[in-house]
Amino acid sequence: MNDRLKKQIEFIVEIDKLKNIKRQTLVLNENRQENDAEHSWHLAMLAFLLSEYSNEEIDVLKTIKMVLIHDIVEIDAGDTYCYDTEDYKTKADREMKAAKRIFGILPEDQGKETMNLWLEFEKSESPESKFASVLDRLQPLLLNYTKGGISWKNHDVHSNQVKERTACTIEGSTELYEYIMHIIENAVKDGMLK
Amino acid sequence: MNDRLKKQIEFIVEIDKLKNIKRQTLVLNENRQENDAEHSWHLAMLAFLLSEYSNEEIDVLKTIKMVLIHDIVEIDAGDTYCYDTEDYKTKADREMKAAKRIFGILPEDQGKETMNLWLEFEKSESPESKFASVLDRLQPLLLNYTKGGISWKNHDVHSNQVKERTACTIEGSTELYEYIMHIIENAVKDGMLK
Repeated sequence: MNDRLKKQIEFIVEIDKLKNIKRQTLVLNENRQENDAEHSWHLAMLAFLLSEYSNEEIDVLKTIKMVLIHDIVEIDAGDTYCYDTEDYKTKADREMKAAKRIFGILPEDQGKETMNLWLEFEKSESPESKFASVLDRLQPLLLNYTKGGISWKNHDVHSNQVKERTACTIEGSTELYEYIMHIIENAVKDGMLK
Repeated sequence: MNDRLKKQIEFIVEIDKLKNIKRQTLVLNENRQENDAEHSWHLAMLAFLLSEYSNEEIDVLKTIKMVLIHDIVEIDAGDTYCYDTEDYKTKADREMKAAKRIFGILPEDQGKETMNLWLEFEKSESPESKFASVLDRLQPLLLNYTKGGISWKNHDVHSNQVKERTACTIEGSTELYEYIMHIIENAVKDGMLK
């Protein structure tokens, strides 16, 4: 077995742990939290189906690769709940350390590619990363709303927080931004959000 | 909200059910079955990282799209365990009906694209579908082997069955076929397979 394939297989086995990282969002048809692997699959489907709504032209393959790997750092760093301001202070350091260890398992060229994709996603400046951020905001919103806002109620989240958190989506997609604002308004109307 | 986006969102919400479809394979670090959404994410990562081993040149984006959607029919048709010969008799009919209903939720062009991707995967004749089949065989094998062969023992699976089930992988990738045979030999040596 060649050394290159050995490293790739080691990485593929390592990232199985993404299936154990629980998010705050609940899946729709069971009473349990979604995990990062399920979330990443769902985002890849959104990238596949909604790319036409990106403000700028995007490379769909690059966008899908980005969302597939965007949460892998959480294997070491854990999921930081987006409305937890304390935990957010140490997020960048914890995640950079994780990225170096995990992407470092791969052969050098692929380690570099995945690291660069992750850094690009975090910066949210390129067309692909701005669009990926839209999907990363839209997907949990859609699940929370469809599920009657349980996660928001559990964490006592205010509509202003959700609006602030999703304001950036206008950079990636004007149409999906408008759709997100429309959901938030409905969630307020339906008493899911204050 | 335009009718096109409405259909796309309806589909995105519908396929959340893939997270509830349990497979026979266990995840590595918890004592529970893997679900189809996790499996599909893992396959997409394999397509991303291992495409260099395809016998024929492949369109990686098409291959990733294919593995992302390849199990969506199981939302209605359920997971058919690959060594259950009885259940296999009705598999094709059940899955075709499911494909029509679920992909039919999408706008016509995307409904056609996903249906064609699924049919192409099932036929396993094109370079992309032959390679996707390799990944679909390799991933559970890798998990079963790493986990000490529990699924094989639970179902009393014989190494000949696994060899027969994975023989087709030589069509998509000679190198990964050899790696798969190497794992099976090790599994027999280690007493995981008879």
